Amino acid sequence: METFEVKAYGTEAIDADLKPLNIKRRIIQADDIEIDILYCGVCHSDLHTARNDWGGSKYPVVPGHEIVGRVTKVGKDVTKLKVGDLAGVGCIVDSCQHCSSCAEDLEQYCLNGFTGTYNAPDKILGGYTFGGYSEKVVVNEHHVLRIPETLDLKAVAPLLCAGITTWSPLRHWNVKEGSKVAVVGLGGLGHMAIKLAKGLGADVTLFSRSTNKIDDAKALGCDHVVISTDDNEMKAVAGQFDVIIDTVPYVHDINPYVATLIISGTIVLVGYLGPLDPMLNTVPMILGRKSVAGSVIGGIAETQEMLDFCGEHNIVADVEMIDMQYINDAYERMLKSDVKYRFVIDMASLKN
Amino acid sequence: METFEVKAYGTEAIDADLKPLNIKRRIIQADDIEIDILYCGVCHSDLHTARNDWGGSKYPVVPGHEIVGRVTKVGKDVTKLKVGDLAGVGCIVDSCQHCSSCAEDLEQYCLNGFTGTYNAPDKILGGYTFGGYSEKVVVNEHHVLRIPETLDLKAVAPLLCAGITTWSPLRHWNVKEGSKVAVVGLGGLGHMAIKLAKGLGADVTLFSRSTNKIDDAKALGCDHVVISTDDNEMKAVAGQFDVIIDTVPYVHDINPYVATLIISGTIVLVGYLGPLDPMLNTVPMILGRKSVAGSVIGGIAETQEMLDFCGEHNIVADVEMIDMQYINDAYERMLKSDVKYRFVIDMASLKN
Repeated sequence: METFEVKAYGTEAIDADLKPLNIKRRIIQADDIEIDILYCGVCHSDLHTARNDWGGSKYPVVPGHEIVGRVTKVGKDVTKLKVGDLAGVGCIVDSCQHCSSCAEDLEQYCLNGFTGTYNAPDKILGGYTFGGYSEKVVVNEHHVLRIPETLDLKAVAPLLCAGITTWSPLRHWNVKEGSKVAVVGLGGLGHMAIKLAKGLGADVTLFSRSTNKIDDAKALGCDHVVISTDDNEMKAVAGQFDVIIDTVPYVHDINPYVATLIISGTIVLVGYLGPLDPMLNTVPMILGRKSVAGSVIGGIAETQEMLDFCGEHNIVADVEMIDMQYINDAYERMLKSDVKYRFVIDMASLKN
Repeated sequence: METFEVKAYGTEAIDADLKPLNIKRRIIQADDIEIDILYCGVCHSDLHTARNDWGGSKYPVVPGHEIVGRVTKVGKDVTKLKVGDLAGVGCIVDSCQHCSSCAEDLEQYCLNGFTGTYNAPDKILGGYTFGGYSEKVVVNEHHVLRIPETLDLKAVAPLLCAGITTWSPLRHWNVKEGSKVAVVGLGGLGHMAIKLAKGLGADVTLFSRSTNKIDDAKALGCDHVVISTDDNEMKAVAGQFDVIIDTVPYVHDINPYVATLIISGTIVLVGYLGPLDPMLNTVPMILGRKSVAGSVIGGIAETQEMLDFCGEHNIVADVEMIDMQYINDAYERMLKSDVKYRFVIDMASLKN
């Protein structure tokens, strides 16, 4: 398959910093869209994959799955977008489109395995996919999103992962006007969960371990902040929440949050992958018909739905803009949660 | 409040056998129904309460919350039943009827605490409630069920606890024609889960640890039996089930069952109260939007719905009839799961 070379930023080894690289993209096929990348958000997964924290990383790794830009070329069969349009790419660049999940627009649960935007086996070009820390990307049109022209484009990028990861469970568990929603953790995902739940008309509470996030949470639109280390505050919200979105990415005790669910309520884990330690107690679940669930990113159709919703409600992420060359420092700051709330790379800096 | 004395069977101490006792029932009030008890099912909770296994038992304990009989008196305001009608009483004899749960016909989740049929504070008479191991019971009409006349009455009794405990989650999680349902555990609850799920038109699988229950499961209407200790059999059903009803009453590893849920599927625990050990792994939950939930008994309206459904579909429990005097032996056999699948006491034997 014919290819062309583009500039990128990535890492060639587990313990190496990210640095300039050249990578190959395929020449557009009939249903492909070529996108000039303007901005790319920086997700924790980028860092974990670059450093092989989850195992299985294939080097070189070029991260980035919160991509926005402008269409520079389209294949002959493309109808979704035309040259010059804004376009977005999230975590998924390919899926089988014939399994039961794909048939339900749930590409994130593709039974044949979706192709991740980076570090996934590339079924078209061979090798492994390269992400958005690059000049251009080529993706088949089904997996490309339309971006509302009215939004601040650089702050749209994080919607493609942090946004959809919280939107999908809010919608699946039927959050609507008047729902009582709580969010655990105030980072990239948490701040989007707050904004999107507010946009849907919910009454939104942030659970925080300390008082120093109260002002930030209120500024994001949060109605209430509950200090999760304060037993009295936790007791005061027992049995309150229809849905809790738990964005915390490390192991933590979810039992205190289960206690704050209403009868038939659900806590959805979107951040932590691993065994629940301390052990989950079934007593309040059985005596209150409560559910503990998980959810990962979202399908293409619901990502589009979210972007359109954000366009209507003028919702974007809170971002800190960086140059590509700052990425290694940005990773260190992310590890200390020192960002409000998402780094976004100005890809023009790649030419520096 | 005026009372009358009835014969009963109960225990006066944690380590004492059950024996004949006399207890007091209230004279019917305006909205009360007095029932001559014909049959009473024997639930594991009876044994646990008699022996204070869960703590908090108040002696004397008179167990029994799977009660069927005939109406002998009705209060002046009663409209639901008349003298001579069949009547049933399950696990709930009172609830506040003004909280949000009661407003939704979910008395089992009454926010002010429902009154259990035995060993619960009796808000009307004082003291603690006495269950169905007795000649008569007096219950306000809201908490009394109508019993279809067409069913084998003695085999109806277990529907009032084992039946509704499995019916409620089957209905809440939307089991219908063509659903794929699995049941973990083949006891009183498990055998009812199979019959009710089949009645609803589901394709039903039993998970069993050994091959010696295959014939029994098939005889109950089960479509498939999967040996849960056989890795190949478990792999063959990965990602299959919409809903799993887990009736196992002791601690066990639910992770292998989570793996058999379809995308967006739910495993509902109805038997085991306590911490999930081994720890529940969130990875398959997040990557497959799977839920782990709990459920307890059911509300009065859905209990009536189930009884009517059983009347239409001729569904009753498989029972072994015993005399009241056999109860202590029956408890020992229950501990060894030596019953297919529910003991039911012929209350006429109380007069022996």
